[in-house]
Amino acid sequence: MHMANAFDGSAIDGLDPAARSLIGRRDAVLASSYRLFYQEPVAPVRGEGVHLYDADGNEYLDVYNNVPAVGHSHPHVQQKVSAQLGVLNTHTRYLTEPIIDYSERLLGLFPDALAKVVYTCTGSEAVDLALRIARYQTGARGIICTTHAYHGTTASAAEISPSLGPNNPVGSEVVLVDVPDTYRDDPTAAAEDFAGRVRAAIGDLQERGVGVAAMIVDSIMSSDGVQSHPVGFLAPAVEAVHSAGGLWIADEVQPGFGRLGESWWGFQRHGIDPDLVVLGKPMGNGVPVAALVGTEAATERFGQDIRYFNTFGGNPVSIAAASAVLDVITDDLLVDNARVVGGRLDAGLRELAAAHPEIGDVRGSGLFIAAEFVSDPEAKTPDPAAAARIVNELRRKRILISASGRHANVLKIRPPLPFSGADADRFLTALSEVLTEQAGR
Amino acid sequence: MHMANAFDGSAIDGLDPAARSLIGRRDAVLASSYRLFYQEPVAPVRGEGVHLYDADGNEYLDVYNNVPAVGHSHPHVQQKVSAQLGVLNTHTRYLTEPIIDYSERLLGLFPDALAKVVYTCTGSEAVDLALRIARYQTGARGIICTTHAYHGTTASAAEISPSLGPNNPVGSEVVLVDVPDTYRDDPTAAAEDFAGRVRAAIGDLQERGVGVAAMIVDSIMSSDGVQSHPVGFLAPAVEAVHSAGGLWIADEVQPGFGRLGESWWGFQRHGIDPDLVVLGKPMGNGVPVAALVGTEAATERFGQDIRYFNTFGGNPVSIAAASAVLDVITDDLLVDNARVVGGRLDAGLRELAAAHPEIGDVRGSGLFIAAEFVSDPEAKTPDPAAAARIVNELRRKRILISASGRHANVLKIRPPLPFSGADADRFLTALSEVLTEQAGR
Repeated sequence: MHMANAFDGSAIDGLDPAARSLIGRRDAVLASSYRLFYQEPVAPVRGEGVHLYDADGNEYLDVYNNVPAVGHSHPHVQQKVSAQLGVLNTHTRYLTEPIIDYSERLLGLFPDALAKVVYTCTGSEAVDLALRIARYQTGARGIICTTHAYHGTTASAAEISPSLGPNNPVGSEVVLVDVPDTYRDDPTAAAEDFAGRVRAAIGDLQERGVGVAAMIVDSIMSSDGVQSHPVGFLAPAVEAVHSAGGLWIADEVQPGFGRLGESWWGFQRHGIDPDLVVLGKPMGNGVPVAALVGTEAATERFGQDIRYFNTFGGNPVSIAAASAVLDVITDDLLVDNARVVGGRLDAGLRELAAAHPEIGDVRGSGLFIAAEFVSDPEAKTPDPAAAARIVNELRRKRILISASGRHANVLKIRPPLPFSGADADRFLTALSEVLTEQAGR
Repeated sequence: MHMANAFDGSAIDGLDPAARSLIGRRDAVLASSYRLFYQEPVAPVRGEGVHLYDADGNEYLDVYNNVPAVGHSHPHVQQKVSAQLGVLNTHTRYLTEPIIDYSERLLGLFPDALAKVVYTCTGSEAVDLALRIARYQTGARGIICTTHAYHGTTASAAEISPSLGPNNPVGSEVVLVDVPDTYRDDPTAAAEDFAGRVRAAIGDLQERGVGVAAMIVDSIMSSDGVQSHPVGFLAPAVEAVHSAGGLWIADEVQPGFGRLGESWWGFQRHGIDPDLVVLGKPMGNGVPVAALVGTEAATERFGQDIRYFNTFGGNPVSIAAASAVLDVITDDLLVDNARVVGGRLDAGLRELAAAHPEIGDVRGSGLFIAAEFVSDPEAKTPDPAAAARIVNELRRKRILISASGRHANVLKIRPPLPFSGADADRFLTALSEVLTEQAGR
């Protein structure tokens, strides 16, 4: 959620007249909360596969967007959604079959205990519902999350999204814990150190009398700069939360649906099942659909006592999109593709890091890779300016990417899943050129 | 949000095997928060215009659903959404034109001061954002809402949704006010009485030291049983809120988009402009899209200070649906249709009420009409059982409707906007038959 590379309006005089006019019209109608990416915003008019195109026909390689999981404008998603729109689109208080078919299929991708699903329209709504359920179920109020987390836009989700900045204070019942930093600290101690911080947070919440309702963690700690290793490091922390009577909420909005290249869900890296799982962004390839998956134990009491009805949630059209996405991921072996192409990217980035010491660390899994930029490789000093320069220079080469992490110095490599080996090579070549150009300055 | 007429599982043995099997599969995968309408649930497989159809080809007349505002499976919405899905679906951090075109058109339907828009995916998200903005803008925390309001499903929206029942307590910073009851009290005093209750709520919040951030009111008080008259009754209450430094949030999720048959928005009945307006359900004919419209004064500070990014909000596909809905409402003169057919329904219901004194009151505007059932016309005793019987008997006649209000004794008549005079007559005839049958028992 960092915006170090955001358009701030200062470049507007340098833009071409069409972009300038569009930005002027946009500023007149959209509230001031809207931000554009880049010093020179990208104005796509068409998308296909891993590419976006502007009005002049320029092609951009998309190395950033996880929402179009199976590729921009995928014809199978279009066809399924369009067909359903011509037949029926109604709510879940009538008995309809598509939501049941899809639910059986979705839950089949989870461990047996995660047997129940609730549909929402956005990941934020699913996070918000997870917090409501956790607090109702446990009777406690306290939530543990990570120091630079982003979990959503509702009031309740924003309270656990410290990455939104100082004007958006964390909630009074929220305690933050630092994620492991295996680049700077001993990786073999990461699991125990993280669990120690979580135990301290539990103690803090208990002392304040609010108790522990849940720990919510993005399974690959996306907004904290991607912390993927060592595999399994979350388990002792989750055990501590369970011992204190709290639930573990796995936020799979970014890592979920096969992106990590090894299994469908990021929590599977950690070898311990969550009580609640939040799904979002890639689920409908951009059609708004999201979900909360949970154990019966975690969800039943809330469900019995409190009516929850999400008007658009689980409607047949959104479900058609979600179903089409599962078709494509499965039929096109996109989980395998994420592993294979992700491996190629990882290896290529490590080669670049060897030649360019400003890349201090490369980490991640599958098609979710982080490259961390530092100004001093010995002191490992975060270099957000370098990351922002790289992002903007790559944009000039028509490669779309962004930076992330507590210091906004981590390149977040998270393309649509059909990213090919050739796409990876194109990205690596462009990055190499930019790094060499920067070095020459 | 009342569910007096909900399926409770007790009727399952009486259902046909296909429905029984579907309900069994559904219960196995969906969390216990899901409820079905009716003692005998409706299982639609197709929708067209104002009709739904089940697998046996039975036709149901839809007198309940406002989400398919321009009719079920409208071909223009299908065509526009489908075309956009094949071209581009991305987020608002790139510069795209559809969101600007639509925003200019949407804001053109509002008074000049309501000049800014933020897109969300659901009315709940828009309500949640309105509360965040009101609290940030005013520095106060207190919210005033009505006694049987429903405003949404997020934690923050649920705090102002007392209709969700006792397990969902209103927030500690929320004060409830009773809506006017012009059936029982003097209508000419409604405006001043309501303002008096609002002034007392303001005093309460000020005394508690939380101040007044906002009053949020559904412009036709849908969940409080539809309180439409006298026209203009909200104005003195809004003035009191403004004097106390609070904002007025008009919830147009149910009344908005021309349903009231006189103008586009329900707040226009009251002759005073809101600071923030929440839009939802009918906006995309079932494709998830919603919005918050506000004045620059109300939205600017939040927008400058706090990043708000809604991943799917305002994406070109949702905007295509919203744009198609405006096309159809405008081209097919559906606001006029709501007024004309609504007038016919209103007159027909008043005729029925004259013959059947259990209909104690008929009120509303356009295609949003309420018929209130009482067991004793003199004492005006609410009769939720009668309303539930009518709803279930009408379902047997394949007419879909529901009940609402504090006592769940108010028939809520809220069909898709292309409801015709013949549809109105079919509904009135069926209701007359049911009332006569009930009287004969």
